[in-house]
Amino acid sequence: MSRVTVRFEPYEIEMQVEPGTFLLDAALEAGVHINASCGGKGVCGKCRVIVESGAVEGGLSEKISEEDAAKGIRQACTSKVTEDIVVRIPTESALDKAALKALATGSSQQAQAIGSKELKAEGRFDPALTKLAVSAEPPTLDDARNDVARLLASLKKAGERHFVFDFEAIRDLPEAWRQGNWNLTTTIMRPVDTKTSRNHVIRVEPGDTTARNLAVAIDLGTTTVWAEMIDLTTGQVLGSEGNFNAQISYGEDVISRIVYAGKPGGLKRLQETATGSINDVLKALASKTKVDLSEVNLATLAGNTTMTQLFLGVEPKYIRLDPYVPAAAYYPPVRASRFGLALPDHASLLVFPSVASYVGGDVISGVMGVGMHKDPRLSLFIDLGTNGEVVVGNQDWMVCAAASAGPAFEGGGIKFGMRASKGAVENVMINPATGEPALVTVGKALPKGICGSGLIALVASLLLTGIIDERGRYDLDHVSDRVRVGEDGPEYVLAWSKDNQLDRDITLTEMDIDNLMRAKGAMYSAYMTLLEGVGLSIGDLDRVILAGGFGQSINIERAILIGLLPELPVDRFTFVGNGSMLGARLVALSNPLRAEVGDIVDKMTNFELSVAPSYMDNYTGSLFFPHTEAKRLFPETLERMRKVKEAVSQTS
Amino acid sequence: MSRVTVRFEPYEIEMQVEPGTFLLDAALEAGVHINASCGGKGVCGKCRVIVESGAVEGGLSEKISEEDAAKGIRQACTSKVTEDIVVRIPTESALDKAALKALATGSSQQAQAIGSKELKAEGRFDPALTKLAVSAEPPTLDDARNDVARLLASLKKAGERHFVFDFEAIRDLPEAWRQGNWNLTTTIMRPVDTKTSRNHVIRVEPGDTTARNLAVAIDLGTTTVWAEMIDLTTGQVLGSEGNFNAQISYGEDVISRIVYAGKPGGLKRLQETATGSINDVLKALASKTKVDLSEVNLATLAGNTTMTQLFLGVEPKYIRLDPYVPAAAYYPPVRASRFGLALPDHASLLVFPSVASYVGGDVISGVMGVGMHKDPRLSLFIDLGTNGEVVVGNQDWMVCAAASAGPAFEGGGIKFGMRASKGAVENVMINPATGEPALVTVGKALPKGICGSGLIALVASLLLTGIIDERGRYDLDHVSDRVRVGEDGPEYVLAWSKDNQLDRDITLTEMDIDNLMRAKGAMYSAYMTLLEGVGLSIGDLDRVILAGGFGQSINIERAILIGLLPELPVDRFTFVGNGSMLGARLVALSNPLRAEVGDIVDKMTNFELSVAPSYMDNYTGSLFFPHTEAKRLFPETLERMRKVKEAVSQTS
Repeated sequence: MSRVTVRFEPYEIEMQVEPGTFLLDAALEAGVHINASCGGKGVCGKCRVIVESGAVEGGLSEKISEEDAAKGIRQACTSKVTEDIVVRIPTESALDKAALKALATGSSQQAQAIGSKELKAEGRFDPALTKLAVSAEPPTLDDARNDVARLLASLKKAGERHFVFDFEAIRDLPEAWRQGNWNLTTTIMRPVDTKTSRNHVIRVEPGDTTARNLAVAIDLGTTTVWAEMIDLTTGQVLGSEGNFNAQISYGEDVISRIVYAGKPGGLKRLQETATGSINDVLKALASKTKVDLSEVNLATLAGNTTMTQLFLGVEPKYIRLDPYVPAAAYYPPVRASRFGLALPDHASLLVFPSVASYVGGDVISGVMGVGMHKDPRLSLFIDLGTNGEVVVGNQDWMVCAAASAGPAFEGGGIKFGMRASKGAVENVMINPATGEPALVTVGKALPKGICGSGLIALVASLLLTGIIDERGRYDLDHVSDRVRVGEDGPEYVLAWSKDNQLDRDITLTEMDIDNLMRAKGAMYSAYMTLLEGVGLSIGDLDRVILAGGFGQSINIERAILIGLLPELPVDRFTFVGNGSMLGARLVALSNPLRAEVGDIVDKMTNFELSVAPSYMDNYTGSLFFPHTEAKRLFPETLERMRKVKEAVSQTS
Repeated sequence: MSRVTVRFEPYEIEMQVEPGTFLLDAALEAGVHINASCGGKGVCGKCRVIVESGAVEGGLSEKISEEDAAKGIRQACTSKVTEDIVVRIPTESALDKAALKALATGSSQQAQAIGSKELKAEGRFDPALTKLAVSAEPPTLDDARNDVARLLASLKKAGERHFVFDFEAIRDLPEAWRQGNWNLTTTIMRPVDTKTSRNHVIRVEPGDTTARNLAVAIDLGTTTVWAEMIDLTTGQVLGSEGNFNAQISYGEDVISRIVYAGKPGGLKRLQETATGSINDVLKALASKTKVDLSEVNLATLAGNTTMTQLFLGVEPKYIRLDPYVPAAAYYPPVRASRFGLALPDHASLLVFPSVASYVGGDVISGVMGVGMHKDPRLSLFIDLGTNGEVVVGNQDWMVCAAASAGPAFEGGGIKFGMRASKGAVENVMINPATGEPALVTVGKALPKGICGSGLIALVASLLLTGIIDERGRYDLDHVSDRVRVGEDGPEYVLAWSKDNQLDRDITLTEMDIDNLMRAKGAMYSAYMTLLEGVGLSIGDLDRVILAGGFGQSINIERAILIGLLPELPVDRFTFVGNGSMLGARLVALSNPLRAEVGDIVDKMTNFELSVAPSYMDNYTGSLFFPHTEAKRLFPETLERMRKVKEAVSQTS
């Protein structure tokens, strides 16, 4: 569907949105502030706007009288944009208006990554696992060939050759042939390299079951686990589910996990814990997509090197010890059930390869997902996560590095942090004059916490509105009563207890801000060091690819504000959402892409930041909003902050 | 060592024997009768002989006075032949002498089958599993390649390429490298087809363990299970062990096993029972050869089609139902531990392929073992066992067929039957004048039962001496008190209670004889029918290859007497002992031979006896000693029987 235009008055801001977008989301995206404290649930009734031309869907409630409705007044949070419209935001004063106008950007962004549609278009929709229905004449005394020979003949007739049978397939074959009255369906695992490997018949079923061929793609993150149910027949993603990685209770980052793995029984426990978390997600996914896990024929898994080795039960300690050596780049296809996954015995697990101890399958899969390894443009790939990874390069060369950002981006180590599930504040905008926030939560529920993207938007807004300074310290003289000193020191009240799901106020402390500062600092210094290492600078970048579970919902302009992302034109940024998830999905969907993984691994050179002298300097410089060298690196950001301050100073 | 000559007087019989052969064994082999009732233990003192020239080793006891000893008198059962000798057998009378002379044949035979020596000579000693010790430089920050990459580089330096790593090998690699201080040993599984398959690294161990590379070869028979411990480094067989297949309690032949497998939980129980029997044998084998089973890297298994499917838990019922279709000819290498074998996880199990429902791995392995598929001579291959199998052919073609002989050959269904273990009577000769037997037991112990070869020798002797007639009925008027009517009807006392390990007499009943009659009849009619089917006859055969667990110890001349083997010159017979065992062993020792298995399977055509009209006629004709058409098929045998009868008639 083509996008529609929303014009926000009195700010003269226009932006393009997908039809069906909620007006409040569109406004926050555009940097247009509308008071809204209930997260978009439609109960606070503060987000009143006037639709001056065109019409929206919904937006009415008992909070809006008939005559108001007749005047075009609607609630922004429950109004869906379906056509070109002009809306007016009521403002208390002209000065307030000036301040708010200074905030507005009108920037809009959209995600893009290869999907099954593109693969089909390119003729590369060729799943590792295919189903083939065949039939045969029943045996006679003159033709008493064994059941396998009969099947091979039928496959040959279908133009299929070079097979190896998994034992289970042979075991099930006699009954499959006869129950299906000499019609059966073979599930075939295609090798990546057809020259040195053969097709594997991993399963036989009576009759024709080709309509149903399912795979699960798993992203095993340090903090969260995600999984998608994929229909390999259509290439369609039937649904996805996620949850925390229960290993968190044994340490928040990979280092502490590796340390724990060194304790007696530690590795085994971490292995079982990872399996348990994945199984919980798979079960939730199965019920959500109405699938029985016994129907799943294939699983793909991508994670960072440590997560991969912990899941497979491979001793991880040498990842942590100089010179940081992982066990392997590639793992053979393994039987999913052998690692305790709640999948049938015949289901294979394809594990994504790693490049280095701190550059794992998550990065490679992300790089593959955006085709960075085949693109002439110079790209910076950033995987935001507890373990941040960055890649710089193009079709000819790639260098990568890793930085431990800590769990802040995924809500970890933040007082009211949570992952991006229902009720998590994912976008925020603060009125610089009043300090009142506009909130949007995941699922438009009453707020119950803050997820990564919400955290970034919040800190950016606090910075832009001068509620915090460049060091992340609160201005306790601020007019808003939301700025106060709580039990953990200075804090900002994002949602009063009455406006949220908890029995207390949801706040952001300076400690939370420090955590985010360190996280963004680690990321920024990582790619700065990497760029310097190859003699390049931010300006040379043709595009920046943003991956990471929460990347999708980040507002780039706000991420630049805090110095997490480099100051570049917004249109140079691309989102790929969860890189691991993307890669795991694509590997299930496309054997050609699976083959390319090898090229990527071979092409990529790892850069050990811990031995790069400039890293610590870059890091120190980054422990500031947006950066100690903002004049050089964030000139426009500084200018925006100045403008807003100026406008606010006039209002007060 | 070159053989030595033994001349038996007064019969003017000479024969060649291996140095170290016991004189009693040599005599019985030559058909020379010497009284001996204790099975060769040396306690009955009856087997006195006079060494007239040359000397023997041992043969003295308190039963032989000094002056007797001085005269050269020795006990045959404890005398070892070490040089050319002339011995005189004391005889009661000249007539007795005539009768005994009529018995004597002087025939001798020797086994021959490919062993590691021949393989080495042919340059085909190339085990499926090899060990390779490699070393590497420790990693540094400049060379932080992963552990697998480092190993691949070392292997490449050693001239090795194209590897796939089993997951376990990767899992164990980090510790193996470091515990071995960057020296380790890889256990490599070679593919049969190096074009379409790669080498598998199935195990890594710290340091250099190449000196020890063990495999077990398993023969899973319907009645008995045998296993050998093989040193793949030297090709030496360290030892072998055997026992009954505990599945016997669920049916003596394959048909009744298949029927049992059809009952609820039946297949599972049979699978577990087979595994249990194999494990018992493996454990006995391990302690016998002082090996820890965890050191075993490879297992090979050969059995008939039904045994194979039962062991693997593959539904066997279609083997039994017209048109008798097995599940598969080939099985992929499987993980031995998956089927409950007491072997380490990394150990692969190579399962021998089958040709048809009743022509399985046991036959193919035997055929391969004697190289019948590469020999221009027309050969008849006979695998004697509960399920007898026969193959006729040469390098250009092969036809095979199966016949259910029942367990008689392995001591099953015989009142005092037992397998060829210590105390089993394995050879017998009866004095036609007195009816007194000369016994040799396995391990020269007091008798405790009769094994297959002993049974054949006994019945042959009873026939030759006229104690039973051509229908297998006892001559109750015989002078010997050993012929009597027992609780099960007429019987012959082979060993009195006082001369055996039991608390009662060891006898052979007419029922026992009938069982043997049916068994030999099934075999004879099988190969007769097969030969007729391809327009050939016994006379066309260049050689007869005899396989089967007990084949080794069969006396050919006596087997011909009862009509189990065709009447041909003794020198046309070749023994290969246990065919399955041989094949299982060779597959472990030689990948080239493993590759040939496919050729054999493809070359062999199965002949369904159940639909061959002439089979029943042949069978009926065979239910007679030696055969109803003895004049045509066993002329010389008839002549011998006549001669002995005549001699005996003169004595009485």
